[in-house]
Amino acid sequence: MKVLAIADGKVALVERPTPHPVADQVVVKVAGTGINRADLLQKIGRYPAPFGWPADVPGLELAGTVEATGDRVRNLKAGDRVFGIVGGGAHSTHALTTEALLAGVPGELDLIHAGGVPEVFVTAHDAMLVQARLRSGERVLIHGVGSGVGTAAVQLAKSIGAVTIGTSRTPEKLERARSLGLDEGVLASEDMSAAIGEVDVVIDLIGGDYLETDVSVVRSQGRIVLVGLVAGASARLDLGLILNKRVSLRGTVLRARPDYQKAAAMSAFAREVVPLFATGTLRPVIDRISPLATGEDAYGAMASDTTFGKIVLAPEDSA
Amino acid sequence: MKVLAIADGKVALVERPTPHPVADQVVVKVAGTGINRADLLQKIGRYPAPFGWPADVPGLELAGTVEATGDRVRNLKAGDRVFGIVGGGAHSTHALTTEALLAGVPGELDLIHAGGVPEVFVTAHDAMLVQARLRSGERVLIHGVGSGVGTAAVQLAKSIGAVTIGTSRTPEKLERARSLGLDEGVLASEDMSAAIGEVDVVIDLIGGDYLETDVSVVRSQGRIVLVGLVAGASARLDLGLILNKRVSLRGTVLRARPDYQKAAAMSAFAREVVPLFATGTLRPVIDRISPLATGEDAYGAMASDTTFGKIVLAPEDSA
Repeated sequence: MKVLAIADGKVALVERPTPHPVADQVVVKVAGTGINRADLLQKIGRYPAPFGWPADVPGLELAGTVEATGDRVRNLKAGDRVFGIVGGGAHSTHALTTEALLAGVPGELDLIHAGGVPEVFVTAHDAMLVQARLRSGERVLIHGVGSGVGTAAVQLAKSIGAVTIGTSRTPEKLERARSLGLDEGVLASEDMSAAIGEVDVVIDLIGGDYLETDVSVVRSQGRIVLVGLVAGASARLDLGLILNKRVSLRGTVLRARPDYQKAAAMSAFAREVVPLFATGTLRPVIDRISPLATGEDAYGAMASDTTFGKIVLAPEDSA
Repeated sequence: MKVLAIADGKVALVERPTPHPVADQVVVKVAGTGINRADLLQKIGRYPAPFGWPADVPGLELAGTVEATGDRVRNLKAGDRVFGIVGGGAHSTHALTTEALLAGVPGELDLIHAGGVPEVFVTAHDAMLVQARLRSGERVLIHGVGSGVGTAAVQLAKSIGAVTIGTSRTPEKLERARSLGLDEGVLASEDMSAAIGEVDVVIDLIGGDYLETDVSVVRSQGRIVLVGLVAGASARLDLGLILNKRVSLRGTVLRARPDYQKAAAMSAFAREVVPLFATGTLRPVIDRISPLATGEDAYGAMASDTTFGKIVLAPEDSA
């Protein structure tokens, strides 16, 4: 098989032995595999892979067809269309994972596009619906609404009847987010609190100074979930507001979780999110599809912050 | 009746008309009524009473006997021994409240001492067991363990089989807390993280810079509940740690809650905490009992930070 391996701060396609699945393991022939911010960090040595996953091959999500299964795999067989999250190694023509980290891809969904679905939809579903318990009629603020997780969150929020408010640094991204269900778009600025109004839940993909805005705009008993730190890892917080409004603030990250917790998140995703792709309520938001061999350039595009939705690498085009 | 009324930043005993209960209201003849930090803030004009409660009479908790009931009171009658939380007005010979904010006082509990129980035990129970969901075997850090809420929290944590770590600025308070079930006492300092070790839950009654310690000592998926801000209302937080450890931080306060939420907290307290006073597992920690007429001095003692546990005002001694 071929993999995008990290060397000297860059990724390049190299040959590796195709793994042989044992026990509950599954080898997937990858059709599409999305790029995430964690991949960019791993490439520059700032995000080591968790134990048990490839140390030098990025890629946290994939879609494809089952190629081989271990003897403890129960419900999957060769040829099945699957997608899922992994701890690493997905930027490859073949990926070794386990049955519990995979879900079936609905026939309505293109298999390359499906490779950009799991990481952002599992993250948005887990953060916004499982952890923050967003309910219908509530107002949810999504910072960085044009990002992969942002475009997933706005669709999921809309699908349960919440009112969506999104921020972005460019008017174009706000405009495009409207077609996904964004009700109120706010251009990011130092003084955006007034334009945002009061909200029940914040999904913060930016971090840094945005936390101050979050604490000021949430209602009594509001919930803030911190998912990303693009704007920095330090914030000064008004504890008086947190106490008096009884705010809850929690951080979340998918990759660092042990596999049994990743499996739990995937199971909830399979039950509560995947059916909405079959009905067309949700759709992957794909900025572009790039051949796996052009990974280094595609990573650069992801880092540029000019994309809307996901960049998906397609190994087939690299054959 | 007589009440401690605020005028010119001081409290003094004055005569007021005794209220007449209607509907679900209850008038309690007060035997004991604890002082809390919120009373000190209200006295200097920094904590206005919530809507519907006396504007110039502090006092958030009381124990005593039912004197009169409205026609919609279901389970209480004159002479019943009760305690409860109120939105204000408890520093008085008589207090007007509602049935849902009262619980029965076990026969084993002295009624004056009982006046120092509700605010701190409801707060500690709600913050540590309901919100942070502390479980047996978990390590809980209690900052300010010699305070009213601290001495309640350490006993409650011990009663469910948790391991208790407490901080205080004086060795004497740590020593006294050991008799309440404190397993590990740590003298408060800039560099106390190493002595604390790893914990699952933090009950922070101090705030300010202590938050940095909280974030550094909690384990993966640890829960921090901020209950007080003695050390200040601003903190700089390491969002990277919050995200990667998936920390949850929430603020809580009892007084600002609407009455139906206070009633819910009292109901949980009556079910889960009050029986432990009857068995002797829990006990009020009383620093001193002062006549209601000496309220101004007692408030001063509370502000001095030299007390261990509660100061309770006793109206009977002021007759």
